[in-house]
Amino acid sequence: MDAIFVIEVVGTFVFAMSGIMAAIEGEFDLFGTLILGIVTAVGGGTIRDLLIGATPVSWMSSDLYIYVIISAIPVAFFFFKYLHRLRKTFLLFDTVGIGTFTILGIEKSLALGISPTLSLLMGVVSAVFGGIIRDVLSNHVPLIFRNEIYAFACFAGGLVYLALNYFSQLQESSLFIAISVVISIRLLAIRFNWNIPFKPLSKQ
Amino acid sequence: MDAIFVIEVVGTFVFAMSGIMAAIEGEFDLFGTLILGIVTAVGGGTIRDLLIGATPVSWMSSDLYIYVIISAIPVAFFFFKYLHRLRKTFLLFDTVGIGTFTILGIEKSLALGISPTLSLLMGVVSAVFGGIIRDVLSNHVPLIFRNEIYAFACFAGGLVYLALNYFSQLQESSLFIAISVVISIRLLAIRFNWNIPFKPLSKQ
Amino acid sequence: MDAIFVIEVVGTFVFAMSGIMAAIEGEFDLFGTLILGIVTAVGGGTIRDLLIGATPVSWMSSDLYIYVIISAIPVAFFFFKYLHRLRKTFLLFDTVGIGTFTILGIEKSLALGISPTLSLLMGVVSAVFGGIIRDVLSNHVPLIFRNEIYAFACFAGGLVYLALNYFSQLQESSLFIAISVVISIRLLAIRFNWNIPFKPLSKQ
Repeated sequence: MDAIFVIEVVGTFVFAMSGIMAAIEGEFDLFGTLILGIVTAVGGGTIRDLLIGATPVSWMSSDLYIYVIISAIPVAFFFFKYLHRLRKTFLLFDTVGIGTFTILGIEKSLALGISPTLSLLMGVVSAVFGGIIRDVLSNHVPLIFRNEIYAFACFAGGLVYLALNYFSQLQESSLFIAISVVISIRLLAIRFNWNIPFKPLSKQ
Repeated sequence: MDAIFVIEVVGTFVFAMSGIMAAIEGEFDLFGTLILGIVTAVGGGTIRDLLIGATPVSWMSSDLYIYVIISAIPVAFFFFKYLHRLRKTFLLFDTVGIGTFTILGIEKSLALGISPTLSLLMGVVSAVFGGIIRDVLSNHVPLIFRNEIYAFACFAGGLVYLALNYFSQLQESSLFIAISVVISIRLLAIRFNWNIPFKPLSKQ
Repeated sequence: MDAIFVIEVVGTFVFAMSGIMAAIEGEFDLFGTLILGIVTAVGGGTIRDLLIGATPVSWMSSDLYIYVIISAIPVAFFFFKYLHRLRKTFLLFDTVGIGTFTILGIEKSLALGISPTLSLLMGVVSAVFGGIIRDVLSNHVPLIFRNEIYAFACFAGGLVYLALNYFSQLQESSLFIAISVVISIRLLAIRFNWNIPFKPLSKQ
């Protein structure tokens, strides 16, 4: 599972960076920037762990995650303009990150005896709640609630993963197929501007 | 306890619907709508469970709650206008729901060795924090902080329940009496426009 | 540890009062005022306890904290104007409170096997997250994210505490030295208007 580990670390860094960039745009001070980096990077996994009863939460078990997050701060400090221009490249890393976090969240929940339906939900929560807390702390309605296919891509990838696991034993290839589903849906959604609004019949 | 179970399921549905209606008014997409339905329906019980150390949180132990919540989405989709007009009927269900959640929250906390005072608080938290999280995620100051007798009704009902339990053994009838207190106070409060502002002497 | 206990109780009262004053300014009703008092006073320790897996959270184990918080409400009711004028005196109590909460948070985390780095973070979280939740519930961007040296003072004091503990055995005097560091930095910061903004190079 070495590839997974590398993806997890890179994903943590990219998530932290998204919180740090939001903090810079909100003119937060250094401490606010650190906190926003932390909650964005580990907030989703923390909520998942609290709900499924996995305490202490996972990032407490090793200093690795906090150092990865802290290391994103000087990078943002020196290369902010450059990173801003690199947004599209980031998006790819970010998408690989959310795909991986979704599947790892599902696996961890299943392992603790949570039902497949709720494990799927917990996988998505792992991937998206960091961003939701980031937006609440910056006093915005969470972006993901309005116009992002992001969560739908996670659900679809998670569903594929559960189906593959049900019918086959190849856990590791299931994982890579599922992550590919997340990435494909999200990139297609951005390319073709997909969206899933929710308008009741009587309001349409 | 079959009546209780039915009330719990109906209460979950009504709470979820209140989150879903708020999401529709905030123009959330399908995912945002689902999340707002979930946090409104189970948020209060989740906070209570985390505080009293009952993990995994209660709605993780069965798929029933998540399916009840999901089932509210198509109902909102097809009958939004109709539901909007039915608000007063809803209010009754909602009040029965909060009364029940308050008492069940008190019972669960007492059973885990929490003191009566804190159990009373945990009962109220079970009933009202779902709505508080809903309002924070929609970027409003929680409604209940401003002009709702809602929380006071829960406190009063919970207090009656604790008193009845202290003096008698009739647990089940205590429960129905306490729920009636919650309902009566809330309906009277709405009818006569009761409110409990908090104005310091020097500001009056 | 009697001095510590007194500081903890006074700190809880002062923190609760800061939430109650914010509620009064936001025109909350009595229930909203109570909730804002509670989350401000115990929110930071609650988040810390949830993250490090110490459940039920600490304030659930005794009625003392909730009664201290409730007792702040009549004080605010009768002496609001007076308290408003006393803000500078309050600041001193508040600073002693955050210093103590930081160190106690570090100790509790270390005792549960959390690494020194993460324990330091947990100490700061204990001290500052109550105020962050208070601001989120009043629909503001948390004050501490914008222009407060508060968090930095906690980090510095916590670091001194960890260093002293590493090199000596005098736990109790370490504690008082560390709290003095927190207080000195904060008071100097207010006096000389220190601030630690975070501006990327390319934005400067």
